[in-house]
Amino acid sequence: MTKTSFEDFFVVIPAGGSGSRLWPLSRADAPKFLHDLTGNGKTLLRSTWDRLTNFVPLENVYVVTGEAHRKAVEEQLPDLAAGRLLTEPSSKDSAAAIGLAVSTIRKDFPAAVIGSFAADHVISDDLQFQEAVGQAVESGRSGYVVTIGVRPTEPSTAFGYIKAVSDRVSPEETASVVTNFVEKPDYETAKGYLASGDYFWNAGMFIAQASVWWELIEENRPGLAAGLAAIADMRSSDEGADTNGLWESFPRDAIDYVIAEPAAAAGRMRMVIARFGWDDVGDFAALANIHQKNQSGDVAILGSNAKVVSQDSSGVVVSQSRRVVSLVGVHDIVVVDTPDALLVTTKQHAQEVKRMVEHLKLRGLDDVL
Amino acid sequence: MTKTSFEDFFVVIPAGGSGSRLWPLSRADAPKFLHDLTGNGKTLLRSTWDRLTNFVPLENVYVVTGEAHRKAVEEQLPDLAAGRLLTEPSSKDSAAAIGLAVSTIRKDFPAAVIGSFAADHVISDDLQFQEAVGQAVESGRSGYVVTIGVRPTEPSTAFGYIKAVSDRVSPEETASVVTNFVEKPDYETAKGYLASGDYFWNAGMFIAQASVWWELIEENRPGLAAGLAAIADMRSSDEGADTNGLWESFPRDAIDYVIAEPAAAAGRMRMVIARFGWDDVGDFAALANIHQKNQSGDVAILGSNAKVVSQDSSGVVVSQSRRVVSLVGVHDIVVVDTPDALLVTTKQHAQEVKRMVEHLKLRGLDDVL
Repeated sequence: MTKTSFEDFFVVIPAGGSGSRLWPLSRADAPKFLHDLTGNGKTLLRSTWDRLTNFVPLENVYVVTGEAHRKAVEEQLPDLAAGRLLTEPSSKDSAAAIGLAVSTIRKDFPAAVIGSFAADHVISDDLQFQEAVGQAVESGRSGYVVTIGVRPTEPSTAFGYIKAVSDRVSPEETASVVTNFVEKPDYETAKGYLASGDYFWNAGMFIAQASVWWELIEENRPGLAAGLAAIADMRSSDEGADTNGLWESFPRDAIDYVIAEPAAAAGRMRMVIARFGWDDVGDFAALANIHQKNQSGDVAILGSNAKVVSQDSSGVVVSQSRRVVSLVGVHDIVVVDTPDALLVTTKQHAQEVKRMVEHLKLRGLDDVL
Repeated sequence: MTKTSFEDFFVVIPAGGSGSRLWPLSRADAPKFLHDLTGNGKTLLRSTWDRLTNFVPLENVYVVTGEAHRKAVEEQLPDLAAGRLLTEPSSKDSAAAIGLAVSTIRKDFPAAVIGSFAADHVISDDLQFQEAVGQAVESGRSGYVVTIGVRPTEPSTAFGYIKAVSDRVSPEETASVVTNFVEKPDYETAKGYLASGDYFWNAGMFIAQASVWWELIEENRPGLAAGLAAIADMRSSDEGADTNGLWESFPRDAIDYVIAEPAAAAGRMRMVIARFGWDDVGDFAALANIHQKNQSGDVAILGSNAKVVSQDSSGVVVSQSRRVVSLVGVHDIVVVDTPDALLVTTKQHAQEVKRMVEHLKLRGLDDVL
C-alpha cells in the first residue's frame, strides 16, 4: 500500500445529473445518486461518501448539488462538515459544478490537491480505490492532471474511452500518458478498443493541484473562471449573497471539454489504471448486469418489498410498489414498477429510455419525470 | 329474416368461469363476464343480455351464477325478471349450472325450447345472431339438439372444433349434421381443419326442447338429473331451502360431455353456421387481436383512464390503474396493469398465463387471484 498522505487532498463530489436512462426509478426529485442501486442498503451518494471519507479527512470533502436536493443530501450526509455543501442555483453541467468547488477550495487552501468523483457510480473494492487515488495524488503533486482509467472487460458502447500509452513514460512513473479522450463509440470501434489494450473506460475521475485546475479553467473558459471567482468571493463574505444572476450566465459544459481534453492535448494528463470494478450504471442493462452477477436465477430483482413471480423469463425487475409483478415468457426484459409510472423495455433497448423521457415531456406528463 | 316466434324460447346464461388466462384482469371476485373487454362501455354479461333480450321475452331469460357474484349480476341486470337468477352454492362446471336452469324451466314450462349462451363471449353482429338462433330454434322444435358453429378464419389452437357435414342433410334443412366434437387441436391439426372446410369453432351454444335436454341429462348422468330435479322441487316449494349438500355431491362436468358429444354420437345434433363474428376472448392474444383490428397504431389500449406512451413497440396494454405505462422497443407485448398486480408477457405466451395463476397459488399470493 502506498503511504500517501491525504491531509492536503480535497475531494469534490458533484451530485447532479438526472439519470434519465434510469427513469422511472431516477426522477427530477429523486435522481440516481439518491438511490440504492446495489442493494447494499445505502444510496450511491452515501456509498461514495463512505468510500472517500475512509481515507480523506471529513472536512476536506465538498459536495455540489442543486438547490432542490440540498435537504436530501444533508439527510444522507449528516457528517458533512460546515460550509462543505455548495449549491447550484440551476444545473450548468459538470464544469460549472466542479469549478464552483475548485474556486471555493483554492481560496482557503491554495496548496490543495483536488480530486473530483461522481456521486452515482458503483465501485467494487474500496481499498484498491484508495490505492489508485493515492497514486493519482502523488502524480498530481508533480503538476499533472491525473485520471483513473478502467480496463475494459467488454466492448461497451455506453462509456467514453481514454487512450493511454505506457511505453512513452519512464519506468519509475506509475501513471501512463493520456493521449486523448474519445466519446462513446459504436460497437465495432469498441471491439477494436478492447483488442488494442490502449483504451480505458473514462470513469470521470480527475485529480490535480488546485492551481492546475484553476489554470486550465482560466485558459479554456476565462469567463467561467472570472464568474466562479466572483461567486466564491461573494459567498464567503456574505452567506446569503444572491449569485443566481451570475450563475445563470454560465455556459453548460462538461468537465471533459474544459479540463480533460485540453490537458491531454497539452501533454499534461496522466492515467492510473484502476484495480477495482467500476460501473456508472447508466442504464437498466447495466443495472441488470450488476445484479445478475450476484443473484441466482435469471431474473434480477431490486426492491425491498418486491413480490416477483417469473416463469420462463429473464432480465431485471425494479419494484418500488408493493404489487405482485409476474413475468411469463419474456426474455432480457426490464420492468420498472413505481407507484405512478411503469416502464417495460428490454436490455437491448435500455439506452433508448432517454428518448422515452423526451416523449413523456412532449405529452405533458411532467409529473412523473 | 326468418319469422321465428320466440314466445316459447327460454334462455340460460351461465355466468361463471374464472377466466384465469385473463389474470390479473379477471379475478375470483371480478371474473371475465363482469369486464368490458370490447370497449363498448358494457360488461360482457350485459352485452350478452342485451343481445338476447333484443328478441327473447325478458321473463324467459335465466342467469346462473355463483353465490359470490349474485350482487354484481343483479347490479348488471336490473331488468332480470323475478325468480330468474339461479345461484350455485359452488362451481360444478357447466353441466350442473345449465342443468339447474333446465330443471327449473322444464318444471314450469315443459314445452319450452331452451338455449344456452355463455356470458363472456364477444359477438359482432346482433341481427345475424338473432337470425342464427331463429334457425336453431326451428330446428330444435323438430327434436334435434342444435349448436351454432363458427366458420374458422385461422388455424386457431385456442378453440374446440365441431365436425359437421352438409352433404348428408336434405336441401330443405338449414342445419348441417354434426358428426363429432373435438378438443383444442395442435397447430398442424388446426391447419388441416381450416383447409378441410368441415370443421367449425365450438362457440358453446346449444338449443333443444326442454324434454330433449332432460332426456340427455337423465341418460348420461342419471344421478345429476335426480339431484337437479330434487333441487328444483325444493327451491320452488321453499325459497330458503338448503340445497347445498345435494349440490356438493354433483360431479364436475362440462356440458359438452353430458349433452353435446352424446347427442352427436346418437345422430341427434345439428349445426347452424354463424354469419356473425365470434370470439371467446380466452386469453390476452385474443384480446389484443380484437382491439388491434379497431385501433390505429401498433399498441392496443384498454382502460378508460389509460395513460400509455409507446416507442417502437406493439401489443396490448390493459390499464386499470392511473399510472403512466411506457413501452420501449417491446413487440407483441402484453402488459396488464392493475392496482395490486402486474402481468408482463407476450401474445405468443398468452395461454401460459393459466400456469402463472397456479404458480401464484403455490406462492400463497391468493389475495391477488
